[in-house]
Amino acid sequence: MRLVLATANPHKAREIAGLLPGVDLAPRPAEVGEVDETEDTLEGNARLKARAVAEAAGEPAVADDTGLEVDALGGRPGVLAARYAGEDATYADNVAKLLDELSGVAEAERTARFRTVALVAWPDGREVVADGVVEGHIALAPRGDGGFGYDPVFVPAGGDGRTFAEMTGEEKAAVSHRGRAFAALRCEMGTGLT
Amino acid sequence: MRLVLATANPHKAREIAGLLPGVDLAPRPAEVGEVDETEDTLEGNARLKARAVAEAAGEPAVADDTGLEVDALGGRPGVLAARYAGEDATYADNVAKLLDELSGVAEAERTARFRTVALVAWPDGREVVADGVVEGHIALAPRGDGGFGYDPVFVPAGGDGRTFAEMTGEEKAAVSHRGRAFAALRCEMGTGLT
Repeated sequence: MRLVLATANPHKAREIAGLLPGVDLAPRPAEVGEVDETEDTLEGNARLKARAVAEAAGEPAVADDTGLEVDALGGRPGVLAARYAGEDATYADNVAKLLDELSGVAEAERTARFRTVALVAWPDGREVVADGVVEGHIALAPRGDGGFGYDPVFVPAGGDGRTFAEMTGEEKAAVSHRGRAFAALRCEMGTGLT
Repeated sequence: MRLVLATANPHKAREIAGLLPGVDLAPRPAEVGEVDETEDTLEGNARLKARAVAEAAGEPAVADDTGLEVDALGGRPGVLAARYAGEDATYADNVAKLLDELSGVAEAERTARFRTVALVAWPDGREVVADGVVEGHIALAPRGDGGFGYDPVFVPAGGDGRTFAEMTGEEKAAVSHRGRAFAALRCEMGTGLT
């Protein structure tokens, strides 16, 4: 099966390719610009992106939207995770802002969860959607060089204390929000996808 | 396929039965008492319940744990949703406490999400787990007689403004956290389940 990838983020694209084995992932057509993420939910933004690309390309498109919900910050950065420190924020800027806002908050109070909504849209309006969540907490300082985004400060629950950035891609995929969302998506797409 | 249901809540049991068509759901063995939900994550509690029942019954068991995360309350009641107003709280007590804590908060600021983790555990340690989420907001006052728990005050996003308690069971299942989690669970269990 062939799916057009609605994301232009190379880190996300690489992870998604690993999570959809056997799928021919096509890059987003150049004539489809960046889709503004104007919705206030992950599902809304994933749908916006997948639908825009599916309609422009005339074939099914896959998108994900991921948020980080930190309990001590009332659920922030949430859906705005990728733009937390501003529109052109780097991963390091976002992490620095998060750690700054949590300064003085004890490790036991830094509970958080990553959440991904993965969605495939067809030009005719059909769609398949799936959620994936991983619980954990925000580390006191960044650790590790793997992954991207907030991975250096996210410690999944039930693990050995390593951050996502200290794990291999396979270790992260086995427990991560994105790994779980795409496993469910793949399953619900049926055998046509594998 | 036969699964032992780890919940004794009759409302949940009825919903789960509807979401697992073709599965022979057996009641929890009488000798397994109420399992204390001592974990601080939905997944941890779902695993506790399913595993305790699977081990006692010697056959696979299914559990879910559901939370309500209200952004204006820093993610509360979260995993404690069912016991928000105390150990012996009724649904009405919990709803009253939630509305009281949100008094003065405008409708646009009352964003919230229901989240279910559904989990099947086998006596040999195997498990399948899936997430389901629905975004929405907390209504200013309860509406409707259907559903249970916080359904009279939860308005799912993307709908026509009705609360879950104003929908039929089928309408709720099509968009709900529990409906989505069990759809993914069913799929990931493979054809043995249907």
